[in-house]
Amino acid sequence: MTDIQDSTALHPADRLELARRATADAGVDALLVSPGADLRYLTGYQALPLERLTCLVVPAEGEPFLVAPALEVAAAQASPAGGLGLEITGFAETDDAYALIARRLPAGVRRFAVDNHMWAEKLLAFQAALPDAQACLAGDVLTELRLRKTPAEVAALRRAGGAIDRVHRRMGEWLLAGRTEREVARDIADAIVAAGHATVDFVIVGSGPNSASPHHEVSDRVIRTGDPVVVDIGGTTADGYCSDSTRTYAVGEPPAAFRELYEVLLRAQTAQTDAVRPGITAEQLDAVGRDIITAAGYGEHFIHRTGHGIGMESHEEPYIVAGSSRALAPGMAFSIEPGIYLPGTFGARIEDIAVCTQDGGERLNLTGRDLVVLPG
Amino acid sequence: MTDIQDSTALHPADRLELARRATADAGVDALLVSPGADLRYLTGYQALPLERLTCLVVPAEGEPFLVAPALEVAAAQASPAGGLGLEITGFAETDDAYALIARRLPAGVRRFAVDNHMWAEKLLAFQAALPDAQACLAGDVLTELRLRKTPAEVAALRRAGGAIDRVHRRMGEWLLAGRTEREVARDIADAIVAAGHATVDFVIVGSGPNSASPHHEVSDRVIRTGDPVVVDIGGTTADGYCSDSTRTYAVGEPPAAFRELYEVLLRAQTAQTDAVRPGITAEQLDAVGRDIITAAGYGEHFIHRTGHGIGMESHEEPYIVAGSSRALAPGMAFSIEPGIYLPGTFGARIEDIAVCTQDGGERLNLTGRDLVVLPG
Repeated sequence: MTDIQDSTALHPADRLELARRATADAGVDALLVSPGADLRYLTGYQALPLERLTCLVVPAEGEPFLVAPALEVAAAQASPAGGLGLEITGFAETDDAYALIARRLPAGVRRFAVDNHMWAEKLLAFQAALPDAQACLAGDVLTELRLRKTPAEVAALRRAGGAIDRVHRRMGEWLLAGRTEREVARDIADAIVAAGHATVDFVIVGSGPNSASPHHEVSDRVIRTGDPVVVDIGGTTADGYCSDSTRTYAVGEPPAAFRELYEVLLRAQTAQTDAVRPGITAEQLDAVGRDIITAAGYGEHFIHRTGHGIGMESHEEPYIVAGSSRALAPGMAFSIEPGIYLPGTFGARIEDIAVCTQDGGERLNLTGRDLVVLPG
Repeated sequence: MTDIQDSTALHPADRLELARRATADAGVDALLVSPGADLRYLTGYQALPLERLTCLVVPAEGEPFLVAPALEVAAAQASPAGGLGLEITGFAETDDAYALIARRLPAGVRRFAVDNHMWAEKLLAFQAALPDAQACLAGDVLTELRLRKTPAEVAALRRAGGAIDRVHRRMGEWLLAGRTEREVARDIADAIVAAGHATVDFVIVGSGPNSASPHHEVSDRVIRTGDPVVVDIGGTTADGYCSDSTRTYAVGEPPAAFRELYEVLLRAQTAQTDAVRPGITAEQLDAVGRDIITAAGYGEHFIHRTGHGIGMESHEEPYIVAGSSRALAPGMAFSIEPGIYLPGTFGARIEDIAVCTQDGGERLNLTGRDLVVLPG
């Protein structure tokens, strides 16, 4: 199951069969997948997350089937799922969909896996409908499949990366002294869609002291001349793949101490992107940047992991974090985004998405990484 | 607990205490609330849904506290949650937040409630960390509180309703023969934001035969003269409250059979909005429209429930559906959206949000309900 799928289609028809085999190999009797990235990955169906259950069922033995509210069946059939030869069963407004699925599963189900983001109300309903079975996570079954992107998926991520790069290249149009973070963020959000994304996933504009708060989003703070500004943005393209790139700008000449910090960060992030290759572990890759930042005296100010996997979700496996001995392998895609944050003063972060290749790594974000000083 | 809260603030400071009492009354030892509508309702904190745990803990006895990743603590403190006198505890990247919470709960926890949309991976982690306790749903604890909107919440829903009405009033600018549903939907999405929403939640544009598919979203179908078009749209305002309104348009004069169907639907929807009052049950209100539609011979073509509650979520309690004996009470807000769908031909739906008042109902959507025939 760890071989890269060789298909060049974004929704290869063999993916359900690969998932079935992974389910059987994991000792799981059935995979239950509600709307979200796993469902879209397996079938191409981007179902609405509703209180009514929509669920793909992949038994370890037998044929997969999709259960959906009667009034969603037409949409399911019109989606790529309709072309997979998958049975799609509707249920009426007053039916118990959980009981319906439990009845259709093979007798004696002992373990079932649910997608990691299934809502608690649905998981508890399955636990009640299958009282003798143990629930586990579909992530344990599907992660090995999802983590190694096919060439078609890498191409989709490359397109997403190009789209977010186009937004960063236009930053000088919007990021101006005298404007608020919120005003700038609104323009960026419009540009994310205009550049080729279907949705805006997040827009972080952290200026001045807000640049020192890694998960600051936006505020009404007015950007001033000399401010460093962290801009961390991403969206999802129409085919379901995510972008995520951070650049730190200066609006007018920033303090000298900021330039020093930025140079250390740039060395760290460059070393990390250069270090991507098959076999290096997630914790080793994290350490490559952390060691440089620590040696320069900023160790305590790099307060988060180096990165997260990306694909049909903004955050997925593999996480590039201390304590993870996962070895990188071709097809894995993840962010490399070290940051240095001096609380109350300023901070910076540089983020590219990288893909591990057969003999190294490919960066999917290609805007310059030197500090861009915009006119103040 | 069923009294309407009398505060006029959107995030009254007593809400956590009301939730604590409801938790104790339900025989639940602790409420565990991850990012989403429940957390925002209880604290005003609109946290990002991340793989790292953020969780509000409301013990039946004792003080509530919020656990968040270290790098989210500043954002939590800057949110309305920071003004509630709530302890906010950060945890480091490699800490086990579930174990941390389990240790802080009173010994001998037997039942804990999780928010209905908590991710399965988080619920299973809590079940593992609290192996002797039983999980149930926060909905069972919080629904009675969330269902009855305060005057401040009704005002927020009224503002959301006004915003979506402004979009419907401009429909003639975009809904033109020769354009695709997708092109029209893009303009509508822009207008939803421009009209005063923070996010676009959904845009359904179902033209011609697509109008007969209740959950059709958009397609590349070109709208033609004579087409009925169902436009069902909604968003969420900056203060977190949702809008949702459907109007069915005709682009040029529609078929006579469509006008007949529409007149029946309009009578049904009008009768239902007029029937809203304290004491009527959800199933009775559903029947008011269903009986009219059935008597006119379209019964089998009204294939969904009448409506769903609305507040900080687009779909929440109370559901206006056959089989629900829930009596309406002042402060409840819900959609009234009967539809008639002739598969492959055309369909129509009319939807307003209504609030049950002390002596009747208030419609929060006030655009005309007569069929609007736009220039073909």
